[in-house]
Amino acid sequence: MSQKKVVLAFSGGLDTSFCVPYLMEKGYEVHTLFVNTGGVSREKCHQIEKRALGLGAKQHWQVDAQQMLWEEIITPLVWGNSKYQGQYPLLCADRYLIVKESIKLCQQLNTNIVAHGCTGMGNDQVRFDISIKALGEYTILSPIRDIQQQVKDVRHYEIEYLQEKGFKTSTEHKKYSINENLLGVTISGSEIDQWQEPQDDTYVLTNHYHDFPEESLKLRIEFKQGQAVAINGEPKTGVEVMQYLNKILGQYGVGRSIYTGDTVIGLKGRIVFEAPALFGLLKAHQAIEEVVLTQWQNQFKPQVADKWTELVYKGFYFDPLCNDLYQFLASTQQHVNGSVELLVYAGQLQVVAVNSPSLLVSKDASYAQTASWGIEEAVGFIQLYGNSTATWAKVMQEQDGAA
Amino acid sequence: MSQKKVVLAFSGGLDTSFCVPYLMEKGYEVHTLFVNTGGVSREKCHQIEKRALGLGAKQHWQVDAQQMLWEEIITPLVWGNSKYQGQYPLLCADRYLIVKESIKLCQQLNTNIVAHGCTGMGNDQVRFDISIKALGEYTILSPIRDIQQQVKDVRHYEIEYLQEKGFKTSTEHKKYSINENLLGVTISGSEIDQWQEPQDDTYVLTNHYHDFPEESLKLRIEFKQGQAVAINGEPKTGVEVMQYLNKILGQYGVGRSIYTGDTVIGLKGRIVFEAPALFGLLKAHQAIEEVVLTQWQNQFKPQVADKWTELVYKGFYFDPLCNDLYQFLASTQQHVNGSVELLVYAGQLQVVAVNSPSLLVSKDASYAQTASWGIEEAVGFIQLYGNSTATWAKVMQEQDGAA
Amino acid sequence: MSQKKVVLAFSGGLDTSFCVPYLMEKGYEVHTLFVNTGGVSREKCHQIEKRALGLGAKQHWQVDAQQMLWEEIITPLVWGNSKYQGQYPLLCADRYLIVKESIKLCQQLNTNIVAHGCTGMGNDQVRFDISIKALGEYTILSPIRDIQQQVKDVRHYEIEYLQEKGFKTSTEHKKYSINENLLGVTISGSEIDQWQEPQDDTYVLTNHYHDFPEESLKLRIEFKQGQAVAINGEPKTGVEVMQYLNKILGQYGVGRSIYTGDTVIGLKGRIVFEAPALFGLLKAHQAIEEVVLTQWQNQFKPQVADKWTELVYKGFYFDPLCNDLYQFLASTQQHVNGSVELLVYAGQLQVVAVNSPSLLVSKDASYAQTASWGIEEAVGFIQLYGNSTATWAKVMQEQDGAA
Amino acid sequence: MSQKKVVLAFSGGLDTSFCVPYLMEKGYEVHTLFVNTGGVSREKCHQIEKRALGLGAKQHWQVDAQQMLWEEIITPLVWGNSKYQGQYPLLCADRYLIVKESIKLCQQLNTNIVAHGCTGMGNDQVRFDISIKALGEYTILSPIRDIQQQVKDVRHYEIEYLQEKGFKTSTEHKKYSINENLLGVTISGSEIDQWQEPQDDTYVLTNHYHDFPEESLKLRIEFKQGQAVAINGEPKTGVEVMQYLNKILGQYGVGRSIYTGDTVIGLKGRIVFEAPALFGLLKAHQAIEEVVLTQWQNQFKPQVADKWTELVYKGFYFDPLCNDLYQFLASTQQHVNGSVELLVYAGQLQVVAVNSPSLLVSKDASYAQTASWGIEEAVGFIQLYGNSTATWAKVMQEQDGAA
Repeated sequence: MSQKKVVLAFSGGLDTSFCVPYLMEKGYEVHTLFVNTGGVSREKCHQIEKRALGLGAKQHWQVDAQQMLWEEIITPLVWGNSKYQGQYPLLCADRYLIVKESIKLCQQLNTNIVAHGCTGMGNDQVRFDISIKALGEYTILSPIRDIQQQVKDVRHYEIEYLQEKGFKTSTEHKKYSINENLLGVTISGSEIDQWQEPQDDTYVLTNHYHDFPEESLKLRIEFKQGQAVAINGEPKTGVEVMQYLNKILGQYGVGRSIYTGDTVIGLKGRIVFEAPALFGLLKAHQAIEEVVLTQWQNQFKPQVADKWTELVYKGFYFDPLCNDLYQFLASTQQHVNGSVELLVYAGQLQVVAVNSPSLLVSKDASYAQTASWGIEEAVGFIQLYGNSTATWAKVMQEQDGAA
Repeated sequence: MSQKKVVLAFSGGLDTSFCVPYLMEKGYEVHTLFVNTGGVSREKCHQIEKRALGLGAKQHWQVDAQQMLWEEIITPLVWGNSKYQGQYPLLCADRYLIVKESIKLCQQLNTNIVAHGCTGMGNDQVRFDISIKALGEYTILSPIRDIQQQVKDVRHYEIEYLQEKGFKTSTEHKKYSINENLLGVTISGSEIDQWQEPQDDTYVLTNHYHDFPEESLKLRIEFKQGQAVAINGEPKTGVEVMQYLNKILGQYGVGRSIYTGDTVIGLKGRIVFEAPALFGLLKAHQAIEEVVLTQWQNQFKPQVADKWTELVYKGFYFDPLCNDLYQFLASTQQHVNGSVELLVYAGQLQVVAVNSPSLLVSKDASYAQTASWGIEEAVGFIQLYGNSTATWAKVMQEQDGAA
Repeated sequence: MSQKKVVLAFSGGLDTSFCVPYLMEKGYEVHTLFVNTGGVSREKCHQIEKRALGLGAKQHWQVDAQQMLWEEIITPLVWGNSKYQGQYPLLCADRYLIVKESIKLCQQLNTNIVAHGCTGMGNDQVRFDISIKALGEYTILSPIRDIQQQVKDVRHYEIEYLQEKGFKTSTEHKKYSINENLLGVTISGSEIDQWQEPQDDTYVLTNHYHDFPEESLKLRIEFKQGQAVAINGEPKTGVEVMQYLNKILGQYGVGRSIYTGDTVIGLKGRIVFEAPALFGLLKAHQAIEEVVLTQWQNQFKPQVADKWTELVYKGFYFDPLCNDLYQFLASTQQHVNGSVELLVYAGQLQVVAVNSPSLLVSKDASYAQTASWGIEEAVGFIQLYGNSTATWAKVMQEQDGAA
Repeated sequence: MSQKKVVLAFSGGLDTSFCVPYLMEKGYEVHTLFVNTGGVSREKCHQIEKRALGLGAKQHWQVDAQQMLWEEIITPLVWGNSKYQGQYPLLCADRYLIVKESIKLCQQLNTNIVAHGCTGMGNDQVRFDISIKALGEYTILSPIRDIQQQVKDVRHYEIEYLQEKGFKTSTEHKKYSINENLLGVTISGSEIDQWQEPQDDTYVLTNHYHDFPEESLKLRIEFKQGQAVAINGEPKTGVEVMQYLNKILGQYGVGRSIYTGDTVIGLKGRIVFEAPALFGLLKAHQAIEEVVLTQWQNQFKPQVADKWTELVYKGFYFDPLCNDLYQFLASTQQHVNGSVELLVYAGQLQVVAVNSPSLLVSKDASYAQTASWGIEEAVGFIQLYGNSTATWAKVMQEQDGAA
C-alpha cells in the first residue's frame, strides 16, 4: 500500500526541520512547501530547498507569494488605515497565504493531509487551523504540539532527535524569536517578554539614532484607488514599493515600535516590530483619505477597518465577513487618487503636502477663511444642531427650579 | 436707566479687542474675562488686563483654569487614548472652560448676556454657542459675526475701527493663525490651508531636527488611576506634568503633526499642531493600559473614547452623554497604576519598559513560551472558537458539490 | 424672453397645490411631477394630474417608482434588518426617489431649477435639499418656506390664496397628517404630538383587534439572495410582495407601532406608523439570516445596517458612504436563500420554521445535544476563552492579599 | 482524614441529582445549594430540599436570589434596552447569581471546591466555569462532563446509576428541555432544534390566541431612574413587578418568541422563549427613554448596551468591562423618570402615552408644527449640515466634466 502524502508548510527553521523526519517516521510521504512572503534572499531560498531535501522530503515546492501578499493583505490593510489594538499592522498576516498555498498544493497532489510547525502556545496555530478548516476538510498534523504533550524542553528534544538521525543542527541558542516578511520584522522573547527595555542590537530594519542620515528626504507617493503605484514619479509594483520603503525609511528609524497585545488565546504578548514601509504607506494613505472622503465616510470607515483587522489578527481571514468588509473598503477607495509628499528626517515622517483631483474643497469656501454662506446660516446651523442638548438644558433647569 | 452688563470672553487679540468698544457703543457695560488655559506668561496676563481696561472695559477679570483643564479635559482625554479622526488630540477643548467661567461670572454679576469673538466661519462659534445654551438661557452676542454680515475684509475693518477710536493696533499681518494653551499649539493659514508644505519657521514648541539634542533621554512616568502623578520619582501636579513634558519632549521634535480634519461645519480644515506632552502621555498611558486592562476592556474602550472625542470636538462637551462616557472611562481606570519608562531620542519616543502591580500576567503562562494548559486544550479552543466559520465552509462545499 | 422652467415635485395636497400658481406668479413655467411610490390608486393618479393642470401647470409628468422603491430602498432595508433608533423602518425613504426623478426631469427639460413643498419645520426639507445638492448644482425653490417667513397661519394663507385665484380647495381641517406609500403609513399631529393615546380611528392599514380574523394564517416566504421572491410558492414582484403583505398582515393588526424619534433637526417627533409588510419581511429575513450567516457576520452586520439606516433617515442617501454600506450588505446576502414559514394570528406573527440549503448546521453537532468534540476540548475552549478575565481575577486577588 | 467539602449548585433535576451520589462516591462531603431565581413554588422548594437530603447531601442550603436578580441583572438589562442578537433578553443570566451564591457558600464552608451539573455541549458550562474563575481560585467539578467522556447515552446512564443506588427516578422522557426563572421560560429540543414549528402545547407562560382575553387592558408603569417602581399607582418591588407582568401579559400572548442564536461555542442554537414581563418592561422603558434622553444619548447608548448583553450572554458577567458598562448605563438613567401607559390586547402591547417631568420638549417648538427658529436658520442648518456631501458632489461633477 502506498504512503499517504502530506504537505508540510516549511520554513527551514528548527521546528519545521524536525517535522520532516518525524512525519516520515509516522509513515508519511513528505512534500515540503516554502511560501516566500518576503524578507528572504534568493540564496536563502536555495538553502531552504537543500535543507528540505536533505532532511528527506520526497519533493520540495516553492511559491513566491509576495505580489499576492500585496494584493490580498497589504492593500486592504492600507485601505483600512487600521492596526490591531491601534498599534500592530498585522505583520503575521502572511500566514493566511501560506495556508492557501498549502491547500492548493494538497489539491494538486491529491491529498487531504496538511502539516504545520506551530506550537500550542501561540496565535499562529489558531490562524493555521481555522484557515485550513475554512478551506475544506483536511486532516491537520502538528508535530510540535504532539511532542509538547510529552516533552518539556521541546527545543532540546528536537535538536537531539535530528542529531540522532544524523542531521546537522545549529545548537546556538537565539535570544530572540525573529520573524521577517515583506510587511516587516517582529521580535519577541527574553527581556521583551518581561516588559523590560530591548537591547540596542535587537533591531533589524531600523537604524539606531546615531546612524540616522544627516540630510532629510523628500518622497512623493502616488496613489490610484488607494494603492501606491509610483514613488517620485517612477511606477513600482507593490513588492517594489514595500522593499524600497522598508529600506529607505528604515535608515531614518521610521516604523519601529513596541507594544503589548491581547493575543487570541487570552494572554498578554509583548513584541517589538519594525514596519517602515507600512508606517509610511499608512500615514500617506490616511493623509489622502482625509481630503477625499466625505465626513460620513471618514467617521464610519474606521469601524469597518478595525473589524477587518481584528478578524485577520484572530485567525478569521477566510470567514465570509472578511470578504464583506473588503467589499466596503474597496468601495470607499474609488476616488482615493492623487499624490502625497513625505518629508523624512531623523526619526520622523511627516506628510507635508497632498494633491488630489478629488480633494473635497469647494471653490467658494475655505475653512476659517471665507464662506459661501451667510452668518445667519451659521447661526441657524448651530441652533438646530444644538437643539437636543439645549432642550435638555432648559428642561433640567425648569425641573431644578420647580424642585 | 442702568446699562446692561455683558461678560466678554477676552483674549487680547484683534477680534476680542474690537469687541470691547463695539459692545460699549451698543450700550453695554463690558466685563472682560481672561481665562488662562496655559501657554501664556505672567507678563502677558498683565498686558491682557491693561489692554482690556485701556479699551474701556468696566472691569477685567482673570481666572487660572489650568488645573481645571488638567482635571476636566486632559484627564479624560488621556484615559480615552483617543484623538479626533485618529489624529487630533483636541487642543481646542479649553474653549469649554472659557465658556464655563464666563457663565460663572455672568451669575456672579447677575447678568444673562455673554459675548465672544468667534467668527462665523469656524468650529469655535459652534463650541461657544452650544455650550452656552447647555448651561442656561443666555443672550449670546458675537460682534465679529455681526460685522461679517456687512463687511468683507473684517480684519481691516476692525483695525480702522479701533484706530478711529484712538486705540493702538498692530497692523502687521500675521501669516499664520496660532493658538496656544496647556495642551499645545495649533497653527493654520497660508500654505497650510492649501495642503502645501509648511515653512521651517512655522513651529513653536518642537525643534527642527538640526537642533535635536544629541543624547537620548530616559523618563519614568508614574500613573495613579490613569493620571500621571510623578516623573522620575518627583511628584508633579498635572499642570507641571504638561509644562515639563511640553518643554523637554519638544526639544526632541516629539508631538509635531499635520492633518486635515472634517470640521463641524462640514468643510475640510488642515492644521499643523504640536502637542509634545500629550503625545508622550498618550503613548505612556496606552502602554500601561495594554497590560492592565482585560482583552474585553481593551477592545471595547476605544469606541467609548472615540465618542467622547467626537462630542468634545463637535461642541457637545456639556451634553449629558459626555458625562455618561466619562463615568465609563473613570471606571476603567481603577487599576491603571504603575510606571512606564520612556526612551526619547531624535524625533522619537518609545515606551521601553512597563511596571505595574496590576500587570495581567499569570505566573503559570507566558505567551508563546510556557502554558498552564495542555495541548488538547489549545486544540479544543481552536475547534470551538472556529466552529462557526468551519461549519460555514462545510456547508458551502456541500452546496457546491451538489450543484 | 422665455420663462424659466421649474420642476415641482407634486403630490396634489394643499402645499404643493399652492406652489403651482405661486411659482407661476413668480414667473416660472411650472412642470409638475408626481412620483408614484405606492399607496395611491389609479384613479387618484388621474385626479392628481387633473389638479396639476387645473392649477395651471404647463405640463404634468408622472413616474411609477414603486419597483425602484423595492430595489433601491426596501431591498437594502430588509438586508440590513435595521430600523432607525431600533423602531422606525424608514417609511420616509421614498423622498429620495422623488428627488432623483425630479432631477432626471430637470435634465430632460434642460432646466436647473427644482421646487418642493416642504415646510421649514420638518425632516423632509433636509432630505430634499441635501439630496438635490448631492445630485448636482440646482436652484432649490421652496415656496412654503418662503411664505412661512412672513405668514403665521400658513394653511389659512394657502387656502385663501388658492380661493382668490379661483381654485377650489377643501377647507375641511384634517386632524392628522397622514402619509402613505408602498412602505406603509405614517400618522402624526393632534394628541399623537402630545404623547397621548391615539384614537381608535387613527389607523389606516391595520385592523382594530375586534376585527382580527378568527383563523390563523400560514405564509411561506421564499428568499433569493436576501430578496423575497415568492409567497406560498407563487412568484411575486417586489411591489406585489409589499401590496399583498400590507393587506393580509394588516388584517391581523401586524406592524402597528408608535414611537418618538430624534428628528434630524434635533426635536423629539412622535408618530404612529403602520408597516405590516415590512414588519413581516424583516422578521422573516432575520430568521433566515440567523441560520445562514456566521457568528462574525451576525454580530457585526447590525453596525453597518444601523449606519445605513441613520444616513437614510437623516438625509444622506446620496452620500458615497451609503453606497459603501450597500456593497457590504449586498456581499452578506450571497447565501441568504431559502424559505421561512410564518404563523400569523390575532396581533402576532411568528417565524415558526426555517428552511435553507445554507443552514449552518453541521451533521456532527447539534447545540446542547451532540457534539463533534470531546469534553476536553470544551474545557480547553473555556480555559483559553476565559484566560484574560481569569488572569485579571488572580492578579486582583494577589493585590488584595498583598494590601 | 476528613472528607473534602464540595458545594454543588443543585436544581433537583436529573443531572444535579446524579451529581450527589456520584460526588459522594468520589469521596466528597456534598453541600447542595438551591439558588431560587424565580419560577418555582414554595412547595417545589421543599421538594428540592427533600430530594437533596434523600440523595445523601450532608447539608442542603437555599437562597432566594430573586431580588438580587432584579437589581443586578434585570435592572441593567432594562436600562440597556438590548437583547442578544436583537432577540434574546438573556433569560440565562440567572446563572451568574447561582455561581456567586455558590462561591459565597464555599467561603462560608471554608472549601474551594465547587461543582455544577452542566453538560459539555452547551453555553452554561462556559458561564459557570468562567464566572467561577473570575471569582477566585476554585477547583471545578463537573460530573456530567466527566461521564460524557465515557458514556454515550448520558441520561440513560444517570437513571440506571440512581436506580442502582436505590433512588427513585422518573423515567418519563420529556420532549423539551424547559428552564424557568423570574425572567421567563426557555424551551428547546425536539422539532425546535430542527427549525420546525413547535407544537401548540409547547408554551408555558403565554396563552394560545384562542384563549386571549376579550377585553383590552390598560397598565400604567411608573419608572424612577429607569427602574419600574409602581404599576397602576401601586408601589411594587421588582420581584412583584416581574411576577405580575409575567402573569397578566402572558394571558394576552405577549412576549412569546422563537429565534436562532449563535451560541458561545459557535453552533447555531434555536429556542423558544416566553418573557412577557421583560417584553413589556423593555417596551415601556424604551418609550420613556425616547423622550428623556438627548439625541446623542439615544444614538450611542445601544452600542454600550449591546456590549453588556454580549458579555452576559457569553459568560463574562464578572469581567471588569461589565462593570464599566454598568457605570455608563447607570449614568444615563438619572432622569429616566415618569410613567408610561400601555394598551394590551389580543397578542399586542402598545405604549400609547408617555408622561415625564424630563420630557425633552421645548415650549417654543414642536416637531413639524411650530418652530422657535426662522426659516433662514433651517436653510442655514441644511446648508452646513450637508456641506461635506455637497462638496463631494461638486468635485465629482467637475472631475466628470474634465474627463
